[in-house]
Amino acid sequence: MSSSFGTLFRVSTFGESHCKAVGVVIDGCPPGLALSEADIQTHLNRRRPGQSALSTDRREADQVVILSGTEDGRTLGTPIALQVANKDQRPGDYGDMLDIPRPSHADYTYQMKYGIRASSGGGRSSARETIGTVASGAVAAKILKEKCNIDIVAWVSSVGEIESMPVDENTVTREAVDAATIRCPDLKAAVKMERLVAELKEQGDSVGGVVSCIIRNVPAGLGEPTFEKLEAKLAQAMLAIPATKGFEVGSGFAGSRLCGSRHNDPFIQKEGRLGTITNLSGGIQGGISNGEPISLRIAFKPPATISLPQLTVDFSGRDAVLEAKGRHDPCVVPRAVPIVEGMAALVILDMLLRQEARKALQF
Amino acid sequence: MSSSFGTLFRVSTFGESHCKAVGVVIDGCPPGLALSEADIQTHLNRRRPGQSALSTDRREADQVVILSGTEDGRTLGTPIALQVANKDQRPGDYGDMLDIPRPSHADYTYQMKYGIRASSGGGRSSARETIGTVASGAVAAKILKEKCNIDIVAWVSSVGEIESMPVDENTVTREAVDAATIRCPDLKAAVKMERLVAELKEQGDSVGGVVSCIIRNVPAGLGEPTFEKLEAKLAQAMLAIPATKGFEVGSGFAGSRLCGSRHNDPFIQKEGRLGTITNLSGGIQGGISNGEPISLRIAFKPPATISLPQLTVDFSGRDAVLEAKGRHDPCVVPRAVPIVEGMAALVILDMLLRQEARKALQF
Amino acid sequence: MSSSFGTLFRVSTFGESHCKAVGVVIDGCPPGLALSEADIQTHLNRRRPGQSALSTDRREADQVVILSGTEDGRTLGTPIALQVANKDQRPGDYGDMLDIPRPSHADYTYQMKYGIRASSGGGRSSARETIGTVASGAVAAKILKEKCNIDIVAWVSSVGEIESMPVDENTVTREAVDAATIRCPDLKAAVKMERLVAELKEQGDSVGGVVSCIIRNVPAGLGEPTFEKLEAKLAQAMLAIPATKGFEVGSGFAGSRLCGSRHNDPFIQKEGRLGTITNLSGGIQGGISNGEPISLRIAFKPPATISLPQLTVDFSGRDAVLEAKGRHDPCVVPRAVPIVEGMAALVILDMLLRQEARKALQF
Amino acid sequence: MSSSFGTLFRVSTFGESHCKAVGVVIDGCPPGLALSEADIQTHLNRRRPGQSALSTDRREADQVVILSGTEDGRTLGTPIALQVANKDQRPGDYGDMLDIPRPSHADYTYQMKYGIRASSGGGRSSARETIGTVASGAVAAKILKEKCNIDIVAWVSSVGEIESMPVDENTVTREAVDAATIRCPDLKAAVKMERLVAELKEQGDSVGGVVSCIIRNVPAGLGEPTFEKLEAKLAQAMLAIPATKGFEVGSGFAGSRLCGSRHNDPFIQKEGRLGTITNLSGGIQGGISNGEPISLRIAFKPPATISLPQLTVDFSGRDAVLEAKGRHDPCVVPRAVPIVEGMAALVILDMLLRQEARKALQF
Repeated sequence: MSSSFGTLFRVSTFGESHCKAVGVVIDGCPPGLALSEADIQTHLNRRRPGQSALSTDRREADQVVILSGTEDGRTLGTPIALQVANKDQRPGDYGDMLDIPRPSHADYTYQMKYGIRASSGGGRSSARETIGTVASGAVAAKILKEKCNIDIVAWVSSVGEIESMPVDENTVTREAVDAATIRCPDLKAAVKMERLVAELKEQGDSVGGVVSCIIRNVPAGLGEPTFEKLEAKLAQAMLAIPATKGFEVGSGFAGSRLCGSRHNDPFIQKEGRLGTITNLSGGIQGGISNGEPISLRIAFKPPATISLPQLTVDFSGRDAVLEAKGRHDPCVVPRAVPIVEGMAALVILDMLLRQEARKALQF
Repeated sequence: MSSSFGTLFRVSTFGESHCKAVGVVIDGCPPGLALSEADIQTHLNRRRPGQSALSTDRREADQVVILSGTEDGRTLGTPIALQVANKDQRPGDYGDMLDIPRPSHADYTYQMKYGIRASSGGGRSSARETIGTVASGAVAAKILKEKCNIDIVAWVSSVGEIESMPVDENTVTREAVDAATIRCPDLKAAVKMERLVAELKEQGDSVGGVVSCIIRNVPAGLGEPTFEKLEAKLAQAMLAIPATKGFEVGSGFAGSRLCGSRHNDPFIQKEGRLGTITNLSGGIQGGISNGEPISLRIAFKPPATISLPQLTVDFSGRDAVLEAKGRHDPCVVPRAVPIVEGMAALVILDMLLRQEARKALQF
Repeated sequence: MSSSFGTLFRVSTFGESHCKAVGVVIDGCPPGLALSEADIQTHLNRRRPGQSALSTDRREADQVVILSGTEDGRTLGTPIALQVANKDQRPGDYGDMLDIPRPSHADYTYQMKYGIRASSGGGRSSARETIGTVASGAVAAKILKEKCNIDIVAWVSSVGEIESMPVDENTVTREAVDAATIRCPDLKAAVKMERLVAELKEQGDSVGGVVSCIIRNVPAGLGEPTFEKLEAKLAQAMLAIPATKGFEVGSGFAGSRLCGSRHNDPFIQKEGRLGTITNLSGGIQGGISNGEPISLRIAFKPPATISLPQLTVDFSGRDAVLEAKGRHDPCVVPRAVPIVEGMAALVILDMLLRQEARKALQF
Repeated sequence: MSSSFGTLFRVSTFGESHCKAVGVVIDGCPPGLALSEADIQTHLNRRRPGQSALSTDRREADQVVILSGTEDGRTLGTPIALQVANKDQRPGDYGDMLDIPRPSHADYTYQMKYGIRASSGGGRSSARETIGTVASGAVAAKILKEKCNIDIVAWVSSVGEIESMPVDENTVTREAVDAATIRCPDLKAAVKMERLVAELKEQGDSVGGVVSCIIRNVPAGLGEPTFEKLEAKLAQAMLAIPATKGFEVGSGFAGSRLCGSRHNDPFIQKEGRLGTITNLSGGIQGGISNGEPISLRIAFKPPATISLPQLTVDFSGRDAVLEAKGRHDPCVVPRAVPIVEGMAALVILDMLLRQEARKALQF
């Protein structure tokens, strides 16, 4: 069940880097939604490899097919199976890595956990697994937009030491994010980030970064205390993305340095509801959305697969030098943007459904 | 189901700040474990209010009773219900807050979610809810220690701007942590932290902080990709603790600034297994433990309830000044230490059980 | 998690026959419901032992206490913990059975599963565990009645070879059921049933029976294909009651003997909806309620604990004669009536909540 | 989540009668298992339509493809996606049924639940959905056989009024079952059953029947009280099969007529364990397997789709006569045999994994 996520809108992903196909089954999609493959493809295109010189050279069209759950372009309320064929498979590239587990990669831990592992690429730990998240997240996002006008926008806020200027969370758009290949809406920073990534790719090295995400127009009341507080499920979702090392909501770690008198968000009257003047809470209080924008930051480590030689040991413990071949991203954050958005959509829609059930039978 | 956590070792908590009792039911506890109330009480004593001048003046003995699931001091494998009576109830203290939702507290969001809320204190959002986590976490920790020698130690690594010196994660003990009231093993920093908290309490203000946690002797192989990666479940668990705003594993946000060549943890031969020279991965790779210590950091915001006057609005949107009465902590991190440890134990034990099931039927 | 049931209205039971208390935690109860202990006690009184000469002599007041989740007589939407103290504990009664597993009881299987078992009575397999089901089912039934006018009535339709005359499923009431101690609304049959049970009690023997159940006014659309079809969850719920051996919905096993032309329920127009002329479907088609009454039958075996001597073996395999002491029911079906009703209520309410979530976001 | 089943070995099915493909994703399959498409195809061939004159004329090769989760013929421990393309789609056949809901079919209830339904065939309520159960059940059965020598054999024990002679549950084999097209190992009864089905097909009518199932060599200790007792999960699984109306374990409804002194199964010493002389318990006591064969009986109603004219109403409530076209089975029980076996395997394997986890950490 660990490849499934969600309670009422529940997704189950499948697929390795080099099997026949990767995909996802969505269980619990509301019926009657207009849904075509194009609705999903747009999001997959933002995730797929080979989009630019900044990412891996592996090229995959990543064409999605809807296998079930719709008829005449409408969802039936039954499970929607989405599938993307794996086309560009070159297992040979990974031959050297059979004996030497890549440092900070999943080779060693998969072997220890399962007693067996895919002989090439990352197997299930590959970023190809995230296709299922992006595809199902696209469906969730469409529902959220059409039913509640909920907007989800993620962007790259830092690469290595280079940070974006602050972004206006109330207005930033996906178009502004996509204006730069690196997906940072601060175009000056974007140029520097792209240059850094290009240099590191040239050197056979890699670099980490941070993705920020804003979720707008979420109604107050979403989140299920206590173990499924809204920030708790968002944290789980984001830390389930490969290569993540940190998560912040609202003020995050910086908030831990403040006094309460400075951190508290005073209430004011907004159109027909209470809002807050500041938003250090990041749109969530007591594990429940308060109607303000939900703001998240997710830290990604540098990709583990680098072509620079690394002193390490092989599976038998003998000293070895690893020079990884194969195609890999020098920096995952631009491609992580649609994954973060997809995860956010999965969490919010599931919480919305659960709250609607409660409201329907409230006394 | 949102007050339940875990798949095989599953806990379900209950209770508000001012009802008859709070507690937890543990389903799936291994049978035959020697378990007494004293085993649990030790942990609850570290969490309870009124331990020192640094915490709330609310005094509760927080005596735990085992209602079911054991006989002659051994667990039966059946649900273990643990209960702590609420004794020191003074609902009157909260009278002023009925009309004015406390800024950055859960008053407003609970009202929006449920259409009703407990009239006094935090209700279910109160820190009293964490008694269930600490009590069930104590049981989990006992099993982990006895079966696998797994150690979990958390401590306060910063309060406001005051940071602890680095702590040796291989050797830090719970005794060293408890040497200072503030639960920071760097005693010089601890003095400053305690002084700061005392000052803010005097001023009617509050302050945030960071809790670090180390989990030692975890076998390689724990964690369930992809949505229940080890760091994902730890992140969910930690962000389910009240007042948390951030989570880091291993290198965390700092890791996002590094190059892969610097961040990767090279393997070396350790006693009978592969280990790593550095541990920027924080003991987890590809969502699975690698046998190195698991290191976490959790950010806590300053408590929302302060007695300093706050300009805000009441539920009807009219301007109001809130001067909170009642008893509240100026800084939650020392009491959060056993909660973080409890959550960590719940996650690790559940993952251990799941991996044991897999190993038993592996081919 | 196996002591929990339900997805959105989720109950977690705890307690053995001879521990301090038995009870249940309800997670996901709609907020704002008027709920008092009396609402629950009525149902528990129908289940408790010692009601009449027909049941066990064990006497328990079975007084329920609401520990959490309500304030001023209204539910808060938070977990509701319900507790019943175990008062009449006489572990000594069971001394003989420590070495000899009772034939067809759970003594042997609990020992094999857990490697340990409660030394007296049935432990977790005792009928006392069903207190949690009845108590939480009472809450569910109240919601179903107040929100949807849903009625649930169960009755004893056979004891041993004695069968009730057919009961009018559209009109039978709980009052009519309770008119006879044996809870059979056909009073002629009831007299025979009661006489049979009294005779068998006198002989130290026991007897089985069948409980029928009707659920009226269920809206069309409840049930979650495919693995949580309405009849599938009802079957799970009923077979989770101790001593059950069979389950039928609608035509049941008799329906397997018929031709389709005879078995199909033709549709007709009823007030504002389609209904069916006959109801061999038992109110469920394709796993989903169709608006007609849902009719169930549940088979209970004779209680395993009898005082007649039984030739068997002890745990070590040596021949032994067991003459069970202790207090036990000669026939469980009258006390099973409120348990069946409780289980039905738990299933229907959970399904109603899930369908409401779907409807709220339907396009 | 309602199209998913199981806790540790968890399957998620997808697909309608007339979409591109049907299939299943298996999450939690033990790693290292030798698994080929042929292992699964054998089981699907027993389920597929068009096997004989007794079943629907719809012909589908039902060729399974393994999309993910294996490499070099071994399972990786990652999700296994199994897919069967829908080839023989003739939506035109169902034109008449768009306006008139078939009596006792799922047309009406699906429309009421989802507000939309597949325009042709049964959509998700079609028997094609059971492909996922049979395919994943085949994987589960292979593991059970290889690891524990567990055997599962189901057969047709009655068709309409025609009953098989008693079958020796200790020795009946799948080969003996498959000796007759109707899958009844009593060949005399089989001839009569087949003649009856042929006659009813000729008349445009249908008939119900009963499938019996035996599960041998199950170790004592499987089943998770209280809501996931072994018989409770088996009941859920079986009632989730389309067209089922009843379930019995062991003595079933007949057992409700007996006295305890007659019904109890006395223990005796068997090779190295306690066994029972009789087996009215059907291999399960207190919700837990006792090591004896588990025996089940499942009632199937006659298929709802018949070509005989039926007086009914259309969706708008107007009188109508339905003469169903399309291809449909006059009797589902022979094809239900592998579905029942598949469901049994899914339940037993999941319970085995859960018990292994417990045993591994037992004190």
